[in-house]
Amino acid sequence: MNADALTRARRVRMMLFDVDGVLTDGTLYIGEHGETMKGFNVRDGHGLKLLQDAGIEVGIVTSRQSAIVARRAEELGIRRLHQGVPSKRALVRDLLAKAGLEAAQGGFMGDDLLDLGAMAECGFAATVPESSEAVRERAHYVSRSAGGRGAVRELCEFLLAAQGKWDEAVRRHLT
Amino acid sequence: MNADALTRARRVRMMLFDVDGVLTDGTLYIGEHGETMKGFNVRDGHGLKLLQDAGIEVGIVTSRQSAIVARRAEELGIRRLHQGVPSKRALVRDLLAKAGLEAAQGGFMGDDLLDLGAMAECGFAATVPESSEAVRERAHYVSRSAGGRGAVRELCEFLLAAQGKWDEAVRRHLT
Amino acid sequence: MNADALTRARRVRMMLFDVDGVLTDGTLYIGEHGETMKGFNVRDGHGLKLLQDAGIEVGIVTSRQSAIVARRAEELGIRRLHQGVPSKRALVRDLLAKAGLEAAQGGFMGDDLLDLGAMAECGFAATVPESSEAVRERAHYVSRSAGGRGAVRELCEFLLAAQGKWDEAVRRHLT
Amino acid sequence: MNADALTRARRVRMMLFDVDGVLTDGTLYIGEHGETMKGFNVRDGHGLKLLQDAGIEVGIVTSRQSAIVARRAEELGIRRLHQGVPSKRALVRDLLAKAGLEAAQGGFMGDDLLDLGAMAECGFAATVPESSEAVRERAHYVSRSAGGRGAVRELCEFLLAAQGKWDEAVRRHLT
Repeated sequence: MNADALTRARRVRMMLFDVDGVLTDGTLYIGEHGETMKGFNVRDGHGLKLLQDAGIEVGIVTSRQSAIVARRAEELGIRRLHQGVPSKRALVRDLLAKAGLEAAQGGFMGDDLLDLGAMAECGFAATVPESSEAVRERAHYVSRSAGGRGAVRELCEFLLAAQGKWDEAVRRHLT
Repeated sequence: MNADALTRARRVRMMLFDVDGVLTDGTLYIGEHGETMKGFNVRDGHGLKLLQDAGIEVGIVTSRQSAIVARRAEELGIRRLHQGVPSKRALVRDLLAKAGLEAAQGGFMGDDLLDLGAMAECGFAATVPESSEAVRERAHYVSRSAGGRGAVRELCEFLLAAQGKWDEAVRRHLT
Repeated sequence: MNADALTRARRVRMMLFDVDGVLTDGTLYIGEHGETMKGFNVRDGHGLKLLQDAGIEVGIVTSRQSAIVARRAEELGIRRLHQGVPSKRALVRDLLAKAGLEAAQGGFMGDDLLDLGAMAECGFAATVPESSEAVRERAHYVSRSAGGRGAVRELCEFLLAAQGKWDEAVRRHLT
Repeated sequence: MNADALTRARRVRMMLFDVDGVLTDGTLYIGEHGETMKGFNVRDGHGLKLLQDAGIEVGIVTSRQSAIVARRAEELGIRRLHQGVPSKRALVRDLLAKAGLEAAQGGFMGDDLLDLGAMAECGFAATVPESSEAVRERAHYVSRSAGGRGAVRELCEFLLAAQGKWDEAVRRHLT
């Protein structure tokens, strides 16, 4: 995006993601007995694997609670899964501290007011283009792709490119 | 939108919403045994909570009947749920009267001819950009976002901003 | 659309629709045991009711076979439901003959090569903007809205307007 | 697309497709117990049938594993179904060899880094517009339509037109 975003992205060692509206397009598929499914993106998933392969910790932080998200996290090998979180800001601060990381080494991608605290807590804050202006103006990186439609993948490629690891990931897949 | 919409939005004390095409993108997911689910938007939901937090009454008015909508209303803490409504116009008039509100204090967001009566009954009428010209030309506010893709959220932020309550909602989430 | 489409639309007494790609956006939701659901559009449905109210016969003609379509047809009060049709052209010719209608009084909206015969059989042929050029160039009317996203509704309003019945439909909903 | 793509498309005798992001829009619908469904496109399916009718072999190659894909392949009469493939490159080389085809006679349409090897193995490589730049710059053909929204159909029509078989397919449907 801009030079500042690039500088900030270089330092990230742990990247955390909100779920609805970021890893999905924000649609909640509700049936008679509650949420029946979520729509995740296959290329987002591969991007998250590439982040982990490159040694960047990946985590999921959401205020909602769902067995669906646990399922997807398991599929992607993401062990840092935090659901039903009352205060994302407090949790993020705690996660960084326990991992021995500074705020500058943390990243958060969210899409709504509930994410503002966690975004402020991290050195690198990202969001999707559909989020409110109040969220976008507090983010260092706003993806061009919509949530659930490649926003997370775009972020992953940006982080990897910023850290000089993207070209190598491509090369590895060519052999 | 325009000055008139802003003036009208300032007076709203009860905001009512149609479901299909407004709280969803208009898609009815039909299986062998009928409707299996609806796709609601997570940020729309948070917008409706913000309206309620700000003291604006929120209600749902639909001519269809579905346990799915009851489920979503419960999740959002919306008690004013009116399904299978034969005449939305009569119901809206009744709801306003019972709450001791004038027409100018009522708002309705709909997307089709069946909503025209209820829209005419309220001081503030809103719709989505996909609705028929006949509906759009009778609305004071036409959202830029599509139904189920942020139309309701956009309306909620507009109402809150018009009433000077949006900045405070943002601030509250930053602490 | 153009003057020709308008002239042709004026004569239509029976309007027939393909399902996938016309009444839906073309997505087949397949689970382990086959098709689980279809996504229909709520405003399309209301448009089909308006056609019927105005005395235009409505029918569904599809080469696939699904209990889901039967369900939706029932909901819309459409009795002319023809599924698993091997030759749409022969069926359409037959339907018009049995109803005592001329070819000029029949309309067909399709989206693929399999619909070309039926479209050629009717005086008024319509399609969606996503269809192949080979289909679009054989249609008198190409909707601006995509299939499942308002294409059918747009067609219904066009037919009603062409026959001078749209304004009355709007008026009736205002009282 | 360009003259090179056309020349390459003329030679294709076996066309292979990735699933998620190519035959679908990349959305993985995940429920509590795993993937509940995939969204395929009806016109893509008809395009694949047209390819087979024209004597071009069609196959599916994916690294994921799903009964849903088996279901869809069966519906389309595709017997070359390869799921849970660890190395798409090795498999594609093997498939071509066993069919007695040269690399120039093979085609592959993919959407991510995992497809790069298979794409390099074939004389004709295609992708969707949403794929990473690293994928797009290694493809001879980039569809205008998105995955699951007509990308495969567009590719099928391109192949058939390149081989002079498209007009005949259209003609056959008109009788």
